[in-house]
Amino acid sequence: MVYLDNAATTKPSINALNKAEVFNSENYFNPSGLYSGGISALKEIKSAKEYILSTLRALNKDICFTSCGSESDNLAIFGLSKRGYYCTTKGEHSAVYKSFLELKNRGKQVFFFDLNKDGSVNLEKLLEFVKENEVGFISVMHVNNETGAINDVNFIAKEVKKINPKIIFHVDGVQAYGKIEYAISNDIDLYSISAHKINALKGVGALIFKKGLTLTPLIFGGGQENGLRSGTENVFGIKVFEFAAKEKYENIKDNFQKVLCLKNYIKDNLNKEDFEIISSKNSSPYILTVSAKGLRGETVMHLLEKEGYIVGNGSACSSKNRYSRVIEACGYKKDVLEGVVRISFNPENTLEEIKEFVNVFNLTVENLKKVMQ
Amino acid sequence: MVYLDNAATTKPSINALNKAEVFNSENYFNPSGLYSGGISALKEIKSAKEYILSTLRALNKDICFTSCGSESDNLAIFGLSKRGYYCTTKGEHSAVYKSFLELKNRGKQVFFFDLNKDGSVNLEKLLEFVKENEVGFISVMHVNNETGAINDVNFIAKEVKKINPKIIFHVDGVQAYGKIEYAISNDIDLYSISAHKINALKGVGALIFKKGLTLTPLIFGGGQENGLRSGTENVFGIKVFEFAAKEKYENIKDNFQKVLCLKNYIKDNLNKEDFEIISSKNSSPYILTVSAKGLRGETVMHLLEKEGYIVGNGSACSSKNRYSRVIEACGYKKDVLEGVVRISFNPENTLEEIKEFVNVFNLTVENLKKVMQ
Repeated sequence: MVYLDNAATTKPSINALNKAEVFNSENYFNPSGLYSGGISALKEIKSAKEYILSTLRALNKDICFTSCGSESDNLAIFGLSKRGYYCTTKGEHSAVYKSFLELKNRGKQVFFFDLNKDGSVNLEKLLEFVKENEVGFISVMHVNNETGAINDVNFIAKEVKKINPKIIFHVDGVQAYGKIEYAISNDIDLYSISAHKINALKGVGALIFKKGLTLTPLIFGGGQENGLRSGTENVFGIKVFEFAAKEKYENIKDNFQKVLCLKNYIKDNLNKEDFEIISSKNSSPYILTVSAKGLRGETVMHLLEKEGYIVGNGSACSSKNRYSRVIEACGYKKDVLEGVVRISFNPENTLEEIKEFVNVFNLTVENLKKVMQ
Repeated sequence: MVYLDNAATTKPSINALNKAEVFNSENYFNPSGLYSGGISALKEIKSAKEYILSTLRALNKDICFTSCGSESDNLAIFGLSKRGYYCTTKGEHSAVYKSFLELKNRGKQVFFFDLNKDGSVNLEKLLEFVKENEVGFISVMHVNNETGAINDVNFIAKEVKKINPKIIFHVDGVQAYGKIEYAISNDIDLYSISAHKINALKGVGALIFKKGLTLTPLIFGGGQENGLRSGTENVFGIKVFEFAAKEKYENIKDNFQKVLCLKNYIKDNLNKEDFEIISSKNSSPYILTVSAKGLRGETVMHLLEKEGYIVGNGSACSSKNRYSRVIEACGYKKDVLEGVVRISFNPENTLEEIKEFVNVFNLTVENLKKVMQ
C-alpha cells in the first residue's frame, strides 16, 4: 500500500514514539504535581515549547498546546473580541471557515476574501477591503490544504498592518509547519499548527501567539497553560510532537527537494488530455491536486485504492459535500470540480513508487473514461 | 518508588498501549478518509463508543470523545443556554467550578450548593434551592476528587427532576468512571469522563449525553463527532481508552475490594493523635484524604517523596492556592487545611507497599512534629 494522503494525516514516526515512550512508562506524572516527577513533566513541556518556537525562529512569541489544529484555530478566532469586520479567505480549512460562520451567528460582521485560481488569497482585493472598512481580525492560511497554494503571510500581514496596525492577524499554519521553511514575523499575532500532519500523534496541536496577547480560553478549569487551556497536559503527545518536529526540521530542505521531485514527476507524466492540474507551480511541494476532468474523483480514488494507492479527494475534513467549497472558490466549473483528486506526500515516499503510481493513475483514468463512454 | 497520586493521573496500561499500537503503525488513517482505512478507523471509534456506553449500562445515551475531562465538563456547561440559575456544588473540580465563574462573568445567575463535612453535596439544601428558585442547569460531581465523597447522583437527579423535569443535570464522573460500578440513569443528561484517570492516556475524555440533546460545540470545523466536536479524532488515544476501560470493568469488583482494603489499612494504622481523617467511611475506596494536623501538607509530601512515596496534596489541578477551596468548604479550619495529604490508589498497589508506607508516614509526621516544636 502506498499512502499518498499525507495532508489528511501521517503515519506517526516510530523514532519519535520510541523516544517519547518514557512519558508513558516512567515519567507519566501529572505536570501539576508538586513532586519532582510532576515538576519534571512540566519542564519537558517547556522544552517542547522552546523547541517548537525555535523552529519558526519566533521572537517575542509564546505558545500554548491544544488538542488539535482545529482547537488552535478556534482559540485564536474566538479568543479575542474585536470591533469591526472579522475577515478570512474563501480557501480556509473548515476549522477557520466554520468558526467564521459561527462568529456570524453570534452577530459579528464577517467577510470572506476571494481566491486566485490557484487557491491563494487575492491580495489586491484583500488590501482594498482593509483600506475601505473597519477590520478587527484577519485569518489567512499559510498553505492551502486543498490546492497547496502558499500565501506569503508575512508580507500580507505587513501590508495589512501598514493600513491598520491594530488588526489582529491569524495564520492557520497546519499544512506549512514542518514542511515549508518559515520565520514567523512580528506582524503575525497568532499561528496554528498541528502534530499529526508531521508524523506525530493525533490529539495535539499548538497555538503560537504574540507575547502579551490576552485570549479568552475555550476550556476553563485547572489553569494549565497559564490559564489559557485547562486540562491535564498531554505530555506524551507533546513530546512526540517535539521529537517528530525535530526530525522534520533537521531535514526540512532535503525533504522539500525530495517531495518537490515527486510532485513534479507526477505533474510532468500525467496524461495532459485527461487531467487538469489545479496546484500551481509555486504551491507547496507536499500537495498536488489534479482533476480527472469529467470523472468522479471519488470513483477514481476507489479504483486507485484497489491498486494499492491511497489518495484523497479534496479535504478529508469536508468530505460530506459533493464539491469542494474551496476548489469552487478557485473558479472551476462542474467537470473539474467533480474529478478532484489530492495527492499529498511524505518524504518517505519514494520516486519508484511514484513512477508506478503515475502509470496506474493514467491507466485507471483512461480505462474509466472508456467505460463511461 | 510507590505512586499514590492516582487521582491526579495514572500510569498508562502497557497492555492497552500494546493493543492500540496498531493504530499508530498500520491503521493510522484519518477517520474522515473515504478509503477503507479511513472507514475502518471510524468504525473503531464507533466500537469504542459502544463499549464505553455499555460500561455505564447507558440506555438512550450518546457519547462524544473530547480531549480531556475538562473539555467534557466545559462542553456540557457551555453547550446549553438555559434560563434561570446554573447551580453546582462547592466541591467541584476546577473544570466545573471555574466554568461556573465564567458563566457568571457572562451574565448568568450561578449558585454553589453547600457541602457536608465529607465533601458530598448537602442534598437537603440543594432540593430546597431547586424548589424555591428557577433553576435551568445543575452540575454535581459523582466522586469528589479531593475527599473521595460519593454523591448518589442518580438519586439526586431523580429528586431534582421530580421538582422540575426541565432542569438539565450534568455529572462530572471523572473520579468514578472505571472505579465505582454505576448504571447511568435516564435522569442524568450529561456525564463527563476522562481516560488518563484509568490507566489510559492523557489527551482523551468523553461526554456522555442524552440522545437528542442539542449542544453548541466548543470547537467548530470539519464536523467530526456529528458536528459536536471538530478536529481529527485521536483514534489511538480513543482505543487505548477503550482497552484500558475493558481492563478496569472486567475487574471492577475485585479492584474495588482491593483498594478498599488498602485504604482501610492506612486509616486503621495511622496514629490517631497525629491525623485527621477527612474521607468518610462511605467515600470512594480509591481516595483517602487525611490531614497531618498542624503541619504543612506540602512539607510532608516532600518528605514522603524522599522516602520513595508519591502522594498528592489536594487536587493537583488547584495547586496554586495555599488551602484547598474544597476542604475549606467542608468546614475545616486552618490547622487541618494546612496539613492535607491525599493518598489515591490504583489496583496495582500492593498491601505490602502500603504497610511500609503507613510506617513511613507515621514516622515522618512524628519526626516533623518534633522538629517543629
